Amino acid sequence: MSRESARAVIAQALSQGRTNLTADEAGEICRAYGLPLPAERVATDAATAADAAREVGYPVALKVLSSQITHKSDAGAIALGLSDDAAVREAYGRIVASARAYDPSATIDGVLVQQMARPGREVIIGAVTDPTFGKVVMFGLGGIFVETFKDVTFALAPTSPARASEMLGEIQGAAILQGVRGEKPADLAAIADVIQAVSQLVTDLPEIDELDLNPVIAYEDGVLAVDARIALRTSEHNGRPRPPRDEILASMRRIMMPKAIAVIGASNEEGKIGYSVVRNILDGGYQGQLYPVNPRGGEIQGLPAYTSVTEIPGEVDVAVFAVPAARVAAAVDEAGQKGVAGAILIPSGFAEIGEQQLQDDMIAVARKHNIRVMGPNIYGYYYTPANLCATFCTPYTERGTVALSSQSGGVGMAIIGFSRSHNMGVSAIVGLGNKSDLDEDDLIEYYGEDPNTDVIAMHVEDIKDGRAFVDAASRVSKQKPIVVLKAGRTAYGARAAASHTGALAGTDRIYDAALREAGVVRARTLEDLLDWSRALSMLPAPKGENVLIVTGAGGSGVLLSDSCSDYGLTLMEVPDDLGLQYKELIPPFGAYGNPIDITGGEPPETYRKAIRLALMDDRVHSLILGYWHTIITPPMVFARLLGEALEEAKAAGKVKPVVASLVGDVEVEEACRYLEERGVPAYAYAAERPVAALAAKYRWARQAGKLG
Amino acid sequence: MSRESARAVIAQALSQGRTNLTADEAGEICRAYGLPLPAERVATDAATAADAAREVGYPVALKVLSSQITHKSDAGAIALGLSDDAAVREAYGRIVASARAYDPSATIDGVLVQQMARPGREVIIGAVTDPTFGKVVMFGLGGIFVETFKDVTFALAPTSPARASEMLGEIQGAAILQGVRGEKPADLAAIADVIQAVSQLVTDLPEIDELDLNPVIAYEDGVLAVDARIALRTSEHNGRPRPPRDEILASMRRIMMPKAIAVIGASNEEGKIGYSVVRNILDGGYQGQLYPVNPRGGEIQGLPAYTSVTEIPGEVDVAVFAVPAARVAAAVDEAGQKGVAGAILIPSGFAEIGEQQLQDDMIAVARKHNIRVMGPNIYGYYYTPANLCATFCTPYTERGTVALSSQSGGVGMAIIGFSRSHNMGVSAIVGLGNKSDLDEDDLIEYYGEDPNTDVIAMHVEDIKDGRAFVDAASRVSKQKPIVVLKAGRTAYGARAAASHTGALAGTDRIYDAALREAGVVRARTLEDLLDWSRALSMLPAPKGENVLIVTGAGGSGVLLSDSCSDYGLTLMEVPDDLGLQYKELIPPFGAYGNPIDITGGEPPETYRKAIRLALMDDRVHSLILGYWHTIITPPMVFARLLGEALEEAKAAGKVKPVVASLVGDVEVEEACRYLEERGVPAYAYAAERPVAALAAKYRWARQAGKLG
Repeated sequence: MSRESARAVIAQALSQGRTNLTADEAGEICRAYGLPLPAERVATDAATAADAAREVGYPVALKVLSSQITHKSDAGAIALGLSDDAAVREAYGRIVASARAYDPSATIDGVLVQQMARPGREVIIGAVTDPTFGKVVMFGLGGIFVETFKDVTFALAPTSPARASEMLGEIQGAAILQGVRGEKPADLAAIADVIQAVSQLVTDLPEIDELDLNPVIAYEDGVLAVDARIALRTSEHNGRPRPPRDEILASMRRIMMPKAIAVIGASNEEGKIGYSVVRNILDGGYQGQLYPVNPRGGEIQGLPAYTSVTEIPGEVDVAVFAVPAARVAAAVDEAGQKGVAGAILIPSGFAEIGEQQLQDDMIAVARKHNIRVMGPNIYGYYYTPANLCATFCTPYTERGTVALSSQSGGVGMAIIGFSRSHNMGVSAIVGLGNKSDLDEDDLIEYYGEDPNTDVIAMHVEDIKDGRAFVDAASRVSKQKPIVVLKAGRTAYGARAAASHTGALAGTDRIYDAALREAGVVRARTLEDLLDWSRALSMLPAPKGENVLIVTGAGGSGVLLSDSCSDYGLTLMEVPDDLGLQYKELIPPFGAYGNPIDITGGEPPETYRKAIRLALMDDRVHSLILGYWHTIITPPMVFARLLGEALEEAKAAGKVKPVVASLVGDVEVEEACRYLEERGVPAYAYAAERPVAALAAKYRWARQAGKLG
Repeated sequence: MSRESARAVIAQALSQGRTNLTADEAGEICRAYGLPLPAERVATDAATAADAAREVGYPVALKVLSSQITHKSDAGAIALGLSDDAAVREAYGRIVASARAYDPSATIDGVLVQQMARPGREVIIGAVTDPTFGKVVMFGLGGIFVETFKDVTFALAPTSPARASEMLGEIQGAAILQGVRGEKPADLAAIADVIQAVSQLVTDLPEIDELDLNPVIAYEDGVLAVDARIALRTSEHNGRPRPPRDEILASMRRIMMPKAIAVIGASNEEGKIGYSVVRNILDGGYQGQLYPVNPRGGEIQGLPAYTSVTEIPGEVDVAVFAVPAARVAAAVDEAGQKGVAGAILIPSGFAEIGEQQLQDDMIAVARKHNIRVMGPNIYGYYYTPANLCATFCTPYTERGTVALSSQSGGVGMAIIGFSRSHNMGVSAIVGLGNKSDLDEDDLIEYYGEDPNTDVIAMHVEDIKDGRAFVDAASRVSKQKPIVVLKAGRTAYGARAAASHTGALAGTDRIYDAALREAGVVRARTLEDLLDWSRALSMLPAPKGENVLIVTGAGGSGVLLSDSCSDYGLTLMEVPDDLGLQYKELIPPFGAYGNPIDITGGEPPETYRKAIRLALMDDRVHSLILGYWHTIITPPMVFARLLGEALEEAKAAGKVKPVVASLVGDVEVEEACRYLEERGVPAYAYAAERPVAALAAKYRWARQAGKLG
């Protein structure tokens, strides 16, 4: 049976106004994709049913074929475990009669005679259509496992063969398929083949909304998909238009590095947004042309004002809007006539308060002119390499290499405060708000080629186009870490998100799978988003998995070890020769395994030598330091000697990630700041956060293939 | 069969040098405790085996009885599923022959004829002897579930009936027993009865090291324990001596509020520990008598020195030791002659470096004199109500109500630094080090009745006497929160702990169960231990589960909601009348569900009214505030209005926990400090930590029965 016939089956069902396919139809489609369904025949009387049963082999099941009867068990339209001709003949009459009684109006197309499966390990393989990411394939243990333990995993469809195989290991009960208690493994390759085929099937046939193979029975040799159900979709998935990559980049370059900016609704009146935006652009030190636009003309904050953007003499790259929502569309139209690349829509009053039509109309105008729209309902954006503060918040000038975006203004302000107070330099902060057009994927494309950006950090409430996001992120994350905080990942959070922006609450496990495939480092909290972004920008990439802990406090060593276990870091087995060098260095009651415990009473020289050993040895890929405040080695003495050791190692070409936990009296805070300025994420009174920060770097490095 | 006969079975096995009991012996013991084992008979020839089979009812299993053959399957000494007399007679001969061939030297005592169980849901019920907590009972799903998903839960033995029932709901697969897919529930009461009986059995019979009922088959009506295995222990569990509670309290009072202190090894030489201790006691402002002791006599830091503690004229409550390890035992002896209550052993060089004998000898001397020993290998201790800094660290005088202890000096220093820099007032900081004698349970007894202490926080690497800890903690935690950070909870951490102090790595799940039963709020990280301790001391107890989020930033609301879900807090359904009041207060595009989103552009009055509504309404039990920094309501304006609203509510008798998340520019940090001084745990750039802090209070309040 060909794949074209599968299309025909779907077309016929839809033409009949049906979205549920019969078992026969579902089976036909699955067989067209080579899925291992039981052998079966259709029979229209008791005698041919018995013939068919002998052909497929006993025992068999009989199922009434009727598109109107979907719950066949309830209708008594199924007979199982029939083992001879007489039983088949008897069952035929019985289930047809039962189906007729259940629904006298149903058309009965005959009876399916189906080979029954031997017992084996049951799994479920299915596919759904996610509103954000489209076709997604699911795999898990079948039966009560899937219901009770929800032990399933997802992947974007279509999967690669490697990804399909990987899924088998991602469920909690993976060992059951690999064989427990001396049992032989199930045919893992055959299961992976089914996953891949299902993912291809739903990709080829987008009209399929959901597909369930449940159970698929896995044997030591082969698998059998006992039951297939398929539901079709009536509505089309509306992808948003996405310009070609070179167009995205061309627009983004003009937006982030504009030669000229117009402020629509510029004002001389303090407290107005149109005032703050002009003020901030000026105070931020922007060097390009700035054109205030106000119908009254005159002078605004010392600059000549234009009555319309079209009156401006030179070219304009960006227009920042500070006019009421109702006037935005007309103003965008004027900006379009002027050839503006980007419209920055600070105003609120659009989709977030239910005015979807107003927003759609505005976007239609922008599309006509090829204008990219940021917002609406945002604080604006910052780009520090251009000294650009196009926002009604405060000027912000702490340059660095982290580019952040947020869907919420509150989170945007948290980014500003945190970065100022925690030594996190920033290249860009962008408010995305309603994301009527410009989206995370556009930013990722730009940051990917932006020499001023090394790390990309995003607060996301919903992703508008999941596939575009995964496409852009999976390319760029190979070069630059992308950290994402997906808000609304719990039922409570999704409820709040829905009342906030009307964003569709995505199923979090699908988000999780998609973000992983995109190579994203996923942060669970705002704290982690901010802290990890900072650490990712400070730390060099590790060259391997070997992590060494060197500590002055045994107690810290234990806590740091616990965190390494929690965050999936590998404490290296210290090679004998290195262990011996440590043994010579530290008191007999210290420890020279991993952690290396140099003990608390040691002078600076012991710390220095212990650190140097770790930095200079190429077998140590990352270093976690646990410092204990003592009178003999005070905090700043430790911080300085570590700084020197790092310089020395760097001069010798030895660069590796180093993080530090400092426990002690308040002086350790100063030492932390000193170390942060030298590229060491350092934390006072903390043993988890330095490890979590290093682990974020590892999560990125692993997926980017940096560990060799 | 009586419980005495169970003892006899054990005594006989031990007298024969056996620690593995036969199935028959295990069955005898289990039956003595009313455990539902299959009906069975012993037969010594084929004919009586067939008689027995008829008595217990077909189908039956036959098992060769031999204490030497423990793996009966391997020996071919089992026959299953026999359904008539002929099969039983045939099987009898076959399995006896097979057992003889397997081990010709084994004594065969006959064959057990056993009723075979109908299929049902399989669970496992067992008991082990934990080195820290003694007898512990385990419950979980049986078969591959227990092996693959490790879906089990533990409780201290003996359990109450309520606790046993509770365990059924603690496993991930609880629904399987409650019935999935229309299946009826298993006999939950019968399962709980078995758990409880097993827990009583191992408590009564401490010689039992491990007991396994696996599987126990659960039916809709009744259960059947198909297989029982029992292993005995040869070594005794050595509990440490524990004085009666009034003696503990009498000693602790003298130690924490001493009228006179001697410093053994006091010194005039800066840099020496004996110098620092005297200096700190003086600088800390201690008002009692201070007696430096040094064999050279003379004057030390302005005080007359005594050549021996016995030379001191008045009574001495506490002796702080700053002499080398080798001289400690003799000095303790002298202190004992003087009638000292507590010996504070700062010196290291004992068990932590393998000198267990030196430590044991010292403790023997102390016990002789009834001296309680703190340490050795510690930084000393602080008790701020007595201005007491008996330590070689720095004086510490930030008074408050949190009493902390740590097993590690590094963690002790972290406590000092954190409390100073984060507004956490402290009543006591105690170093416990090797815990040769004084232990967490002694401290808990004291803090429980200490009017200066409201919250108890402990860093623990190992608990020396698990039962004493649970006993003290479960009493005191009803009145005062106890937070515990158990270090070494992962395999990595336990490895580091073992190299650090030689502490036995307890199985973490047993620790988890025991700490829960003790009413302890368990912290997973140092960060949480410190932060939660502070919050627990700031926050009043909530009166119910209804948590309300009021936020100025919708984005914060989503993140706070996610955290509430993560930490098990209940977002209340806002009553209609309250919702309407909020609706009148906030802009139409705000949200008046939960979170209440007052939106970002609102003036201080909106915040004030929104907060007041929540504080004054008794249906709201706790309040989480999400503040967003705007020009209209700057951070300190928000902080002050919140402070005023709290005062006003307090005056009206409305007291409830309030925590705050502040996002914005750096000014929010000052606002957080202001709020912390007014009893509101407040966090900048953070949405998880305020929720985690409130959740810690809830975890305590729930177990203490404060929520009614």
